[in-house]
Amino acid sequence: MLGEAITFIVESEKLKSVIRRSNPVGMTRHENSAEHSWSLALAATVLIPAVAPHLNELRILKMLLIHDLVEIDAGDTFCYGDQTGKEQREQEAATRIFGLLSPEISQELHEAWREFEAKETAESQLANAIDRLLPLLQNIHNQGGSWAEHHVTYDQVYQRNAELQHSSPELWSYIKKLIEAAHESGILPQKRNLE
Amino acid sequence: MLGEAITFIVESEKLKSVIRRSNPVGMTRHENSAEHSWSLALAATVLIPAVAPHLNELRILKMLLIHDLVEIDAGDTFCYGDQTGKEQREQEAATRIFGLLSPEISQELHEAWREFEAKETAESQLANAIDRLLPLLQNIHNQGGSWAEHHVTYDQVYQRNAELQHSSPELWSYIKKLIEAAHESGILPQKRNLE
Repeated sequence: MLGEAITFIVESEKLKSVIRRSNPVGMTRHENSAEHSWSLALAATVLIPAVAPHLNELRILKMLLIHDLVEIDAGDTFCYGDQTGKEQREQEAATRIFGLLSPEISQELHEAWREFEAKETAESQLANAIDRLLPLLQNIHNQGGSWAEHHVTYDQVYQRNAELQHSSPELWSYIKKLIEAAHESGILPQKRNLE
Repeated sequence: MLGEAITFIVESEKLKSVIRRSNPVGMTRHENSAEHSWSLALAATVLIPAVAPHLNELRILKMLLIHDLVEIDAGDTFCYGDQTGKEQREQEAATRIFGLLSPEISQELHEAWREFEAKETAESQLANAIDRLLPLLQNIHNQGGSWAEHHVTYDQVYQRNAELQHSSPELWSYIKKLIEAAHESGILPQKRNLE
């Protein structure tokens, strides 16, 4: 059981070389999926007491810590880009990577990953909301960041985050104001000028 | 409460530019303290069921997620290097950084940081053990890594990890074998030849 855990930990190091589109605030390099996952889990520890103290915090933290591990095999798929084959690739990756663990731990983490992906429980909905909030904060504090680089529009960002209004109205109300402010300051135009 | 949480989250991005001595397994760059913190929290989720299922998992995860935030102000201090002024710098940093949060969340996380540093509870002892295990795994899988670079010896590594024998005998027994194997394969000499 301990040996399998160590094998899994060593394998997980590979997530540090999966590169995302967004930059950490104030930095010129792109971030990797490992440090991104840390940001989400840390954010959860301070957001849950503020917006959803009744939820199961431990399950949310575990979902956020493991949600991107599948990218070790499947790579990072840009949320505003082509999603073809993503689901199949990620399911195979989950089977391989969580399969490195001994059965009981493997099952729990694989289940947490499925829960995160299905977005059916309140815990997974908040976890997904936090996964969307972080790049939004980064892009706002980086004068547009990956939005500017990939010609992402106000409508796309609004639509991607609007499902939050059901799962976490308080967080959605806050994020909505951020998106509006980004639009008004010119960071997030209604329509990109694709010259 | 939500506004303070967002300020704290944006501030925490700075941990991604605090660089440690060790490299992620198989990579030629040094790692930063944010991705390191992710590794520790992830490792905890698979190690706790294996070696200490009776402990409070949520508290261990929170300690590991926040334990390095003080490095935003105080920098990373190499564990085999000069420790002068470390404690004072880190205490001031904790007061400033956790002070960004609203009082109740601030108090909980500041307390978690103090608990991690004091190493008095079983939870903080396991958290500290995991903080030592990860660079050990990295150095072993990177043919010596930061040990080789900084002339660290078998005796130093053995001594630094031996306190584990009280808090987690099973983990210590595993780590001891890793240290012995590293010594036998020449990665970790008894005495460094400082030419």
